[in-house]
Amino acid sequence: MTAETNALMDAAADANAGEPAIPTDLPLRNDLIGEEPYGAPQLDVPVCLNVNENPYAPKADVVESIAQRIREAARSVNRYPDREHEALRQAFCDYLKAESDARLQPAQVWGANGSNEIMLQLFMAFGGPGRTALAPAPTYSMYPEYARDTFTAWQTVPRNDDFTVNVVDTIQAMHELQPAMVVLTSPNNPTGTPLPIEDLKQILEASQSATVAGAQPGTHPIVVVDEAYIEFRDPGTPSATTLVNDYHNLAVSRTMSKAFAFAGSRVGYVAADKGIIDCMRIVRMPYHLSAITQAAALAAFDHTDEQLAEVNHLRQTREQTAQWLTTQTYKGKALQVMPSQSNFILFGGHLAERELIFEQMLERGVLIRVVGPEGWLRVCMGTDEEMAQFRAALTASLRAAEQMTGYTA
Amino acid sequence: MTAETNALMDAAADANAGEPAIPTDLPLRNDLIGEEPYGAPQLDVPVCLNVNENPYAPKADVVESIAQRIREAARSVNRYPDREHEALRQAFCDYLKAESDARLQPAQVWGANGSNEIMLQLFMAFGGPGRTALAPAPTYSMYPEYARDTFTAWQTVPRNDDFTVNVVDTIQAMHELQPAMVVLTSPNNPTGTPLPIEDLKQILEASQSATVAGAQPGTHPIVVVDEAYIEFRDPGTPSATTLVNDYHNLAVSRTMSKAFAFAGSRVGYVAADKGIIDCMRIVRMPYHLSAITQAAALAAFDHTDEQLAEVNHLRQTREQTAQWLTTQTYKGKALQVMPSQSNFILFGGHLAERELIFEQMLERGVLIRVVGPEGWLRVCMGTDEEMAQFRAALTASLRAAEQMTGYTA
Repeated sequence: MTAETNALMDAAADANAGEPAIPTDLPLRNDLIGEEPYGAPQLDVPVCLNVNENPYAPKADVVESIAQRIREAARSVNRYPDREHEALRQAFCDYLKAESDARLQPAQVWGANGSNEIMLQLFMAFGGPGRTALAPAPTYSMYPEYARDTFTAWQTVPRNDDFTVNVVDTIQAMHELQPAMVVLTSPNNPTGTPLPIEDLKQILEASQSATVAGAQPGTHPIVVVDEAYIEFRDPGTPSATTLVNDYHNLAVSRTMSKAFAFAGSRVGYVAADKGIIDCMRIVRMPYHLSAITQAAALAAFDHTDEQLAEVNHLRQTREQTAQWLTTQTYKGKALQVMPSQSNFILFGGHLAERELIFEQMLERGVLIRVVGPEGWLRVCMGTDEEMAQFRAALTASLRAAEQMTGYTA
Repeated sequence: MTAETNALMDAAADANAGEPAIPTDLPLRNDLIGEEPYGAPQLDVPVCLNVNENPYAPKADVVESIAQRIREAARSVNRYPDREHEALRQAFCDYLKAESDARLQPAQVWGANGSNEIMLQLFMAFGGPGRTALAPAPTYSMYPEYARDTFTAWQTVPRNDDFTVNVVDTIQAMHELQPAMVVLTSPNNPTGTPLPIEDLKQILEASQSATVAGAQPGTHPIVVVDEAYIEFRDPGTPSATTLVNDYHNLAVSRTMSKAFAFAGSRVGYVAADKGIIDCMRIVRMPYHLSAITQAAALAAFDHTDEQLAEVNHLRQTREQTAQWLTTQTYKGKALQVMPSQSNFILFGGHLAERELIFEQMLERGVLIRVVGPEGWLRVCMGTDEEMAQFRAALTASLRAAEQMTGYTA
């Protein structure tokens, strides 16, 4: 590695690690000792394809609307915000109607500071000591941290070899492990795999007769579907939000961070029966969602079409990139590419030296992500220019890694 | 009660209560069943003196700065925010230097969505099953909810009759109950009582030999001082932030919501040893503080003097209101008034019908707070016009309550 890459990696380690210096006489929770803060490195690199952002910045008129809405909100910023964020909840409903044809009332949606906070509120309300959360794995690596932070046991059931949910095994695990929460992800992160709505319905139906360890008799698990990346699915594919009126134990998490190109504002939301939201309201912080955030989100929803304008192009980029990746080889063997309904692709499968390839990419100014099962890497879709740099860097990095590990064709 | 007040109270109940309809087959945490969301009613009333806001809205140039900073931030809002919010942490340091003469580095401060989230992160990092938090009571009614939400046992030690901290009893309770956290509040809410820095030092010194139940041997409790209202103290009174360099188990929570007139933006922060902040970073949500929030707070700090311009006037209002309250009577007996170093006053002491008086105030368009020990009410300082309405409404309400309960002089 060059000195530059070394410095970058050191910076990443500094930013990520708790650093060694937590004094041992502080009463940190015993189970957190040695743990590190969650998060990808935030590095100053030319091409960042590591955290599944939308690469297209808002247009000037959207920026102006945000500034204008916030100017109005700022005039009374000495006052607390609307704790129930009613205008924003109406906007969530309108968006879900347009985007997914979901027919929901404001009482069935609820916003928070990113879908992270939505998930945390769900774990706080339904998890805890003696409770279990169950998920098909591999899946989003933050879920076990919500579980840990709320003292909820985290159990997984293996996905199929193609990373689809094994419905039979998942239902069996639900009956055996009696979780309070079943966490599904569609499309899944980091694999990009969708969850067909018929599979979800089977799990929801089975949940109606499942019991919950540690809970009152007669309770059933809630089923959480994380649809953070759902807007990137193939058009016409139904969203789990269309089932909220049919299953009052279903909670569908959404975010404005990804397709909506609004990661910096931290706005997530959930579509669920009012009963689930009332449970979340017991554990939410009072005034958790600022007047500034509410105003920014409302302004963005004034420009929904513009914010989503590049989603179709990113979908095309995904298909083209997936196709290109299948033409690449490592050590004489073609790369595997997981079919993705998201804005990222998991690729490789046999990249035994994935850390080395990641570092080679970083040296060439392209940041991707080491995540998922061993042998795989994840890249998210950037602009056309960024993807050209990605392709050039990957080809060179694969060759460099082969050479560094003594491979000869 | 009039139909109007009834409707207002119903609206409050609706907004506050979980409503009866949480389906019993949802696996809500057993200990949360029957609990209700925390928060004062958000009612549309002419004079709101119930949630300790600063009544003075930001001036036009501050509003413009906020809009301008956010316009800049919005241009890259498709990207995640700076997870470590480094510019804002420098601004916290600069502010604490100017406001309290505290000499801190950015690594010793940390921001979150309101001091609520600061407290939650502290409870998540240091609380949990088998852990205890201890506080002199009466105190802020949200603390037991943080404890409940994180499965931390909540223990209190009585304050003195004048609501000052009983230092001897608190230290004794710390040794007996072996808490992981000692939560102090200065000035205290809802009583307004300051904690003299010499008392704090005694508790900090004693904490160095205290042990923590359920924690590793050799650990000592952290001491949390909540200084949400500290800017309203008498000038020259030292802040606990000046002790952060001396005690690495001290965490001082602050907020921009109160004196800084920024409640709508939800910005709280903590001053503490880097070790405590590293513990909080393990449990914080990734990207918990949005780019929009960071920009808004930086803009407000560009106008610190303007934002704090009315603090001195509110202090005078407090002194005048306290004086006036002592001249009022209920059922022939003068109202008691607690000496306050905050922007609110706890008054009464013998108001056996405080709910009735609250309702009578509400009918007259003035919203105050039923909080603290039985017999007391709390009012926060409004504008001069609002305080005139408060005084008129209180006199009339006390007379009405006397009449309605059959009192004759």
